[in-house]
Amino acid sequence: MSRWQPDARGRLQQAAIELYVERGFEQTTVADIAESVGLTERTFFRYFADKREVLFDGQDELLELFVSGVDGAPDAASPMDAVAAALKAVATMFEPRRAWSQMRGKVVAANPGLQERELIKLARLSAAVADALRKRGAKEPTASLAAQSGIAVFHTGFAEWIAPENTREFSEIIAESLVALKAVVSGG
Amino acid sequence: MSRWQPDARGRLQQAAIELYVERGFEQTTVADIAESVGLTERTFFRYFADKREVLFDGQDELLELFVSGVDGAPDAASPMDAVAAALKAVATMFEPRRAWSQMRGKVVAANPGLQERELIKLARLSAAVADALRKRGAKEPTASLAAQSGIAVFHTGFAEWIAPENTREFSEIIAESLVALKAVVSGG
Repeated sequence: MSRWQPDARGRLQQAAIELYVERGFEQTTVADIAESVGLTERTFFRYFADKREVLFDGQDELLELFVSGVDGAPDAASPMDAVAAALKAVATMFEPRRAWSQMRGKVVAANPGLQERELIKLARLSAAVADALRKRGAKEPTASLAAQSGIAVFHTGFAEWIAPENTREFSEIIAESLVALKAVVSGG
Repeated sequence: MSRWQPDARGRLQQAAIELYVERGFEQTTVADIAESVGLTERTFFRYFADKREVLFDGQDELLELFVSGVDGAPDAASPMDAVAAALKAVATMFEPRRAWSQMRGKVVAANPGLQERELIKLARLSAAVADALRKRGAKEPTASLAAQSGIAVFHTGFAEWIAPENTREFSEIIAESLVALKAVVSGG
């Protein structure tokens, strides 16, 4: 095997998720991951702080996408419309990553520590969205309620999207969940 | 000091929160807490698994209150009305505990590990409420959206209620936040 191959990062990530699904997250070592694609542990650590970070690697990008989605909404958009715009951008970003998201979902669901990490990630997203809404002039509790409801839509929509039986696009599910949220909250 | 005094549990809890506020959570030991009320560490551990659990001790009671609030709502109540009934019961339970809740809020806000524990607590509440709603016949994503929106109202309302400048009752803030949530979600 040649010493250098393009996209070591992507190959490590793919190998990791496959091993986590196959053997379990706890049972997989960084050495296993690196070896399975002919790389060294040292190379792994050039890209990821630890084996958990392989799963949470896109977190900053996701947060940035949420925030820029809110920032980029028209000035006249209500807080919830700004959140809806952000959700649309996020759904579009995820669309080609369904297979990865399904594998990742399985791994996270099987590990309480990862589930906790996931909750913290969602709370951070929610706090960042509320911040972005306040910067647009939203007051409290409006900003936090819009942010937390939006993250609830993201969270429930994501679960529906990665479900094995699902055949619909993420953006379609998100749009429907936003309508469902309105019906739910207005008591319907 | 006499060997036995009533309500060792309550005294330990009060002493703990005061020390956490005064010295910081990390800097306080179980020995400090026990000594400050003339009890032994052994007595402390009869009531609490560790010093963190002093702060999360009411968690099961709170979860039970949320669930029984949803269970007890009239059959004809919508999912969101059932959640609103539960929130009302929860607010009533908290009302006499504002001073404690404020001190606890300060301690949690100062410690990232406790904040994470708090997020996990909120997620558990949300999951339990969604379960209770599904038992009443609510479908997905309705059950999860109603539960997560309700917990968002609880979370933001709680922060408002314990704010130093607040003079209103928790139940009043909750009722207002539910109205705010409707306005937010319908885009207003």
